[in-house]
Amino acid sequence: MNNRRPLIFVTNDDGFSAKGIKCLFDAVKDIGDIVLIAPDSPQSGTGHAITIHHPLRLSKINTFGIEHAYSCSGTPVDCVKLGVYEVMNRKPDILVSGINHGANTSTNVLYSGTMSAAVEGAMEGIPSVGFSLDSFDSDADFSLSQTVVKMVVEKVLEQQMPIGVCLNVNIPDVHKSEFQGMKVCKQAHAYWADSFSKREDQFGRAYYWLTGEFINEEQTEPTDLYWIAKNFATVVPTKFDMTAHEQLSKIESWDL
Amino acid sequence: MNNRRPLIFVTNDDGFSAKGIKCLFDAVKDIGDIVLIAPDSPQSGTGHAITIHHPLRLSKINTFGIEHAYSCSGTPVDCVKLGVYEVMNRKPDILVSGINHGANTSTNVLYSGTMSAAVEGAMEGIPSVGFSLDSFDSDADFSLSQTVVKMVVEKVLEQQMPIGVCLNVNIPDVHKSEFQGMKVCKQAHAYWADSFSKREDQFGRAYYWLTGEFINEEQTEPTDLYWIAKNFATVVPTKFDMTAHEQLSKIESWDL
Repeated sequence: MNNRRPLIFVTNDDGFSAKGIKCLFDAVKDIGDIVLIAPDSPQSGTGHAITIHHPLRLSKINTFGIEHAYSCSGTPVDCVKLGVYEVMNRKPDILVSGINHGANTSTNVLYSGTMSAAVEGAMEGIPSVGFSLDSFDSDADFSLSQTVVKMVVEKVLEQQMPIGVCLNVNIPDVHKSEFQGMKVCKQAHAYWADSFSKREDQFGRAYYWLTGEFINEEQTEPTDLYWIAKNFATVVPTKFDMTAHEQLSKIESWDL
Repeated sequence: MNNRRPLIFVTNDDGFSAKGIKCLFDAVKDIGDIVLIAPDSPQSGTGHAITIHHPLRLSKINTFGIEHAYSCSGTPVDCVKLGVYEVMNRKPDILVSGINHGANTSTNVLYSGTMSAAVEGAMEGIPSVGFSLDSFDSDADFSLSQTVVKMVVEKVLEQQMPIGVCLNVNIPDVHKSEFQGMKVCKQAHAYWADSFSKREDQFGRAYYWLTGEFINEEQTEPTDLYWIAKNFATVVPTKFDMTAHEQLSKIESWDL
């Protein structure tokens, strides 16, 4: 029988100094032994990027009071790869990423560094979960999120995560008394109607800031966007096989 | 009746000065009117990253001999967003990305800036295709690729691309005489067994270069890795819905 405490890999995309990762760390520190590797600067929106044109730095940090806490100069996916192949000498029992400041519902899963770390974990065969709170406030209230994290982590350690899958957990920004529970559901079909704020620098040359509005095209169906708006935490099983299997025969019929 | 020439959006991740994008441009320039927006520096491995912490620059470039050719300081996905929301005044009829120097078969679709541009195009409702040649040589022979590009682009313009889907086309690095044809297939289950080359800088501080070996776990099944090794060009219909629909009921049974 294996009486080892679970090995828990903690990461995020907002950087090691964000409130969200401290709250994630506090939520899981009694469940197992922690290795924490997080970016040294905010990496929101870096998606599944890896660093191949520059070398990476890894530095010990003391703020978490544990032996294995590091900041990394790269992306969240770099953190996962460094953790698995350079820092840890055994495969972690679970990887948790977050708690992100801002929801990663719907197609935001593609842009999200938080979720890309969890997807990378799944690619490495590690049961992995990304957690995001539906608030961009740097001082957001993570107390409901911590309850959800504990519950999900204990469940994942007890169950068998399907191969090739991680979980995308999004938590509504409400008080515990308004929380409606958990919903397993699918990623909503939505997109960013972007616009660019065009400005001029001190030399009169144009530059652009990306901005935009998120358009939900699936408001009536039981999707993550539907349920989080009803104060449920949503759980989307998320896979890295991006093949549109249901379209294989249609594209085949094109006779390329 | 609409007699307009198709509007073709050309982008890549290797940057506007790569040989691959010039060969892509040459392959499609007689099919329609071109808008070309490509990164001003190599962006391999940037995945679906977007630039939100820095402003973006967009600069006219003259090397392609067309009015609408630009370099962009951001990622491939930034190029797509700038093209759709800032440069073009109508939706392009097709977006083509590449031709990438190096294959984007299997799970490389997640790391690939070339494919992320195509996925972003699909999210914008644009029929989109990423093309990659199975050679990292900066002076690779793209003549077979150009034949494949022309054929696929003409087919996509003639057919209706399914909603939510783009195509991931990978071309073997062989002479036309050895080419076996096209195969519509799925993304292979494979992963990078990474390792890091650890070195010391002039101050004795460690830094790391990401390196690794690609492990194919699906050699016997009819996947993209299987067919490209047999000198076929592979076509994987690729979607941005990452929900593992087939696992919804299993995760529901966990009773979270």
